[in-house]
Amino acid sequence: MNGSLVIAGLGPGNDALITPEVHAALERATDIVGYIPYVERVAARPGLTLHPSDNRVEIDRSRHALEMASEGKHVVVVSSGDPGVFAMASAVFEAVENGDAHWRDLDIHVLPGITAMLAASAACGAPLGHDFCAINLSDNLKPWVLIEKRLRLAAEADFAMAFYNPRSKSRPQGFVKALETLKNTCGDARPMIFARNVTRPDQTIRIVPLNDTTPDMADMRTVVLLGSSQTRIITRNGAPFVYTPRSVLT
Amino acid sequence: MNGSLVIAGLGPGNDALITPEVHAALERATDIVGYIPYVERVAARPGLTLHPSDNRVEIDRSRHALEMASEGKHVVVVSSGDPGVFAMASAVFEAVENGDAHWRDLDIHVLPGITAMLAASAACGAPLGHDFCAINLSDNLKPWVLIEKRLRLAAEADFAMAFYNPRSKSRPQGFVKALETLKNTCGDARPMIFARNVTRPDQTIRIVPLNDTTPDMADMRTVVLLGSSQTRIITRNGAPFVYTPRSVLT
Repeated sequence: MNGSLVIAGLGPGNDALITPEVHAALERATDIVGYIPYVERVAARPGLTLHPSDNRVEIDRSRHALEMASEGKHVVVVSSGDPGVFAMASAVFEAVENGDAHWRDLDIHVLPGITAMLAASAACGAPLGHDFCAINLSDNLKPWVLIEKRLRLAAEADFAMAFYNPRSKSRPQGFVKALETLKNTCGDARPMIFARNVTRPDQTIRIVPLNDTTPDMADMRTVVLLGSSQTRIITRNGAPFVYTPRSVLT
Repeated sequence: MNGSLVIAGLGPGNDALITPEVHAALERATDIVGYIPYVERVAARPGLTLHPSDNRVEIDRSRHALEMASEGKHVVVVSSGDPGVFAMASAVFEAVENGDAHWRDLDIHVLPGITAMLAASAACGAPLGHDFCAINLSDNLKPWVLIEKRLRLAAEADFAMAFYNPRSKSRPQGFVKALETLKNTCGDARPMIFARNVTRPDQTIRIVPLNDTTPDMADMRTVVLLGSSQTRIITRNGAPFVYTPRSVLT
């Protein structure tokens, strides 16, 4: 019996954003592996075993999934958003590279999903409508000096920016420093967007001029976007639209 | 009668990547507006009028969609991929900002889709698994000097990179210059991925060391990815996996 391993993106939270391709993979699965709240999004059914695990065990979780796939099971590793953006796909491939040689020849596929920054951008207009970058602000797996360097260079390149994992209880100071760096390098009132629980019933979107932002505006359920110098706000009744134009004037 | 305007992403090509949210919007629509090949992806039905238009008329197309929405129609503007990434959402908001004052108060929503770089990344592993940027290489709407500056700074920041619209018949020299800049600034053999017609039946994925790339490897149906200095290749029977690890060693 040939097993398989699919690393699938469940999108940002609303089930109406899960692709039919991912739904089909979940229906074929014998085993679901992932962080507890993501596995909870998959409906139980006969013949399906759920393997929820705690956060920060990505490599162990990946090895477990690979072992089950080599035993002939049809395993789906679930991620929030897109599995290729600061999520489980890299962890699985790292486990493959450093694991049993025959894992390399397993049937492994990544199924993309709607990543949080695109859902957040859509929720307020099109702030990522021009060149942009995505930076994970967690320094659990990389040195802070590299994050700061990327923030400075991204500002110099005048990218719109998306920030994942902006602020956790165990890392309260990182986002303080990130905002300081951005205020110093951008030096203007371009809009910053705090999108919390995006696409869920309790979604909140706050649009705040960079100069007026404070660190407590973000937590781990928030994806943060920052416009480029070209980003514009359209005032109106109700929430404004924010967008970055397609043209850059010379 | 209150009209509405939805700007919806059809994903990279395979209909199994269209979200249920977008399907529902297409079912409610009275009018579909978009570039000819994207409108062709929407099935005709009684009560639905299709308005295909040529490329490079984004603002005219947006104004037409806004006019119909103000007349009470339920208009869906379709984009390939995600409408907020180098696509129609920015064009619509630009038309709103510069158009009739009452357009600002229309019921306008953006529905995200799977953008090409995420589908391309998934197709070969997880090359965008760490910090990355997305750059549109077309200089139709911005000066080449800005593109070149962004390429240099993105290389200095050691981002993985995704390039949209790499090379068209009317702009054959841009990608020549882009490759030259990248070879000079990166100066190594990191993998470049040419994903053509990604998720379609005729999908092709080529993985080529940056130093060995040539401009003819890309056209307008290709999204191009470039690994960071950390990106790794897992050799195996069949196509290799490419991924960027979650950790950066200090």
